[in-house]
Amino acid sequence: MKKTALIMAGGRGERFWPRSRKNLPKQFLSLTEDGKTMIQLSVERLLPIVEIEDIYVATNRDYLTLVKEQLPELPEENIFCEPVGRNTAPCIALSLAHISKKYDDAVMMVLPSDHLVKYSSLYLTTLQDACEVAEEGPNLVTIGITPDYPETGYGYIKFVNKLDKSKGRAFPVESFAEKPDLEKAKEYLASDDYLWNSGMFLWKISTILSCYQEFLPEIYQGMEKIRNAVGTDAENAVLDEVFPKLPSISIDYGIMERADNIYTIPGTFGWDDVGSWLALERIKRSNEFGNIVDGNIVTIDTKNCIIQGTDKLIATVGLEDLVIVDTKDATLICDRDHTADIKKVLENLKICNRNEYL
Amino acid sequence: MKKTALIMAGGRGERFWPRSRKNLPKQFLSLTEDGKTMIQLSVERLLPIVEIEDIYVATNRDYLTLVKEQLPELPEENIFCEPVGRNTAPCIALSLAHISKKYDDAVMMVLPSDHLVKYSSLYLTTLQDACEVAEEGPNLVTIGITPDYPETGYGYIKFVNKLDKSKGRAFPVESFAEKPDLEKAKEYLASDDYLWNSGMFLWKISTILSCYQEFLPEIYQGMEKIRNAVGTDAENAVLDEVFPKLPSISIDYGIMERADNIYTIPGTFGWDDVGSWLALERIKRSNEFGNIVDGNIVTIDTKNCIIQGTDKLIATVGLEDLVIVDTKDATLICDRDHTADIKKVLENLKICNRNEYL
Repeated sequence: MKKTALIMAGGRGERFWPRSRKNLPKQFLSLTEDGKTMIQLSVERLLPIVEIEDIYVATNRDYLTLVKEQLPELPEENIFCEPVGRNTAPCIALSLAHISKKYDDAVMMVLPSDHLVKYSSLYLTTLQDACEVAEEGPNLVTIGITPDYPETGYGYIKFVNKLDKSKGRAFPVESFAEKPDLEKAKEYLASDDYLWNSGMFLWKISTILSCYQEFLPEIYQGMEKIRNAVGTDAENAVLDEVFPKLPSISIDYGIMERADNIYTIPGTFGWDDVGSWLALERIKRSNEFGNIVDGNIVTIDTKNCIIQGTDKLIATVGLEDLVIVDTKDATLICDRDHTADIKKVLENLKICNRNEYL
Repeated sequence: MKKTALIMAGGRGERFWPRSRKNLPKQFLSLTEDGKTMIQLSVERLLPIVEIEDIYVATNRDYLTLVKEQLPELPEENIFCEPVGRNTAPCIALSLAHISKKYDDAVMMVLPSDHLVKYSSLYLTTLQDACEVAEEGPNLVTIGITPDYPETGYGYIKFVNKLDKSKGRAFPVESFAEKPDLEKAKEYLASDDYLWNSGMFLWKISTILSCYQEFLPEIYQGMEKIRNAVGTDAENAVLDEVFPKLPSISIDYGIMERADNIYTIPGTFGWDDVGSWLALERIKRSNEFGNIVDGNIVTIDTKNCIIQGTDKLIATVGLEDLVIVDTKDATLICDRDHTADIKKVLENLKICNRNEYL
């Protein structure tokens, strides 16, 4: 069966401020040494198993130009733009309105645009295994990540960790768990029955359409209206009319947590959601003093710092455990244990109506 | 007797990098809230007791334009430029070559251009007292600063702390001491017999000329040659010929430590040599979190930092005890206990031949 992929690229994260901005979110940034942006890497690593014509990008209208610029080889009609942000279930439905017209049926992978994968071939093997499970029945497959440590920032997947219940490398999912507190996260890690929810899903188009019909009928009907308008003069008008009224709900909550036949394949392909500036320590090489340094930098007695500069000289003296990020109009200096508070800077700027920096 | 003042403005300090540069040293920076530069303040505070025509500035050729720009009211012929840096004894001699032609005799104050004084009227009273002592005999008078703490960065003056030996508010100097180590500095502080050497000297022109003749005859002869050429076509040629050959020696070492009749007046006028970025804590008002903040700054959980920005946004998160200084082409981020190591940045830049930042 044909393999298709939908890359979700509508996110508006603030964690890479000041590099990321409202008009340039993380998926459009280059954070790796190869100079490619996250979305470029997300598409590129799929190409051995999915043809470019079968790769789709869901984003919002603000980012259409960026997507076209960064993915010039992607057919323009493969980019779907939400008129407004409405969480993942409506977004995937909008994409289905288009994709389902093009194929009798096909396997559809839903993948993030702003995560990194270290071992591409293991990643592709995992996706291929998942495609097989998705293809052989009305199964919803999710890629779970084997946890390394008790992360409290991710949702978890509780799975039936028994070989006799498995479909090859896929295991039945028992339930989904919200982001836990630290104690619970430690329990999950110790139990061997939990995986991180990576937000990667695979199913047949026919399977997920049935699920929308059953669990999210309102969204399904909206999608049908949009689907009927696709390719007609009324397409945009119908989209603008119907889409904003759809309930804002995630695919996890709307379908995955309610449906049967959910399987997970544990992935061990060096996944990284690149959740903050500290992720650079996993992505980039540090120097002998533990510093990750890019740009025009002079460091004196400086240890374990992440310094991302530009052409402008940054000189550091006697520093430890800081994140320093320079851009043309703004410089961030942040203690490494406080990266979660970068959003407070943005809140402050919003309150002061200094939108040029958001 | 006429009062004259020589402001020493040839210094090339590195401690205010990146604001101060080779072509813009500290005396030409504005570090106070009134927006005036250090040299402007140095001249301005003298005006109640010295006429502008009797104020002189000794600097080097690189800074002539800056001095003229910042002190437009100063007669241009009152600016003396060393062809090369040769320490204070030759510099003062060069100034004397000019000044001694203009007056039969006069009291001459030698004052720094890059220190601050909090209580101007106390300062002027002290200078006036010192002028009187200088005038009444062949005395060399230095202003000593009552020490607050065991500073190791200054030289000290050991004085005879006895009322019966004093001339009014002036006390005989016993000896000069080099910058001490901490233990010695603590001893000095405890003993009550030591003052900080502020580099402010007062004498009659006739007195200091005799001292040059006696203790620094080589410099004296050089000065005579320059003096004879002043106002002639040969002036510059003679200066360029004679001055670079003069021995590089400080007035402290060359004269003050060898002469008799040395007096000191303890000054308590809020003197500050503004020796590093940390001095801003004494000069500027800090906010409720102990931060000294200038520019376009957003601080989140930031305490006891000195942040000197420009129009560019600087956002700080979770920081403590840092000095952050932004300029157009360079940003410094320095731990407050490491400001003495800013010079290492400059050494590094020199080695890499990146002179544009020096």
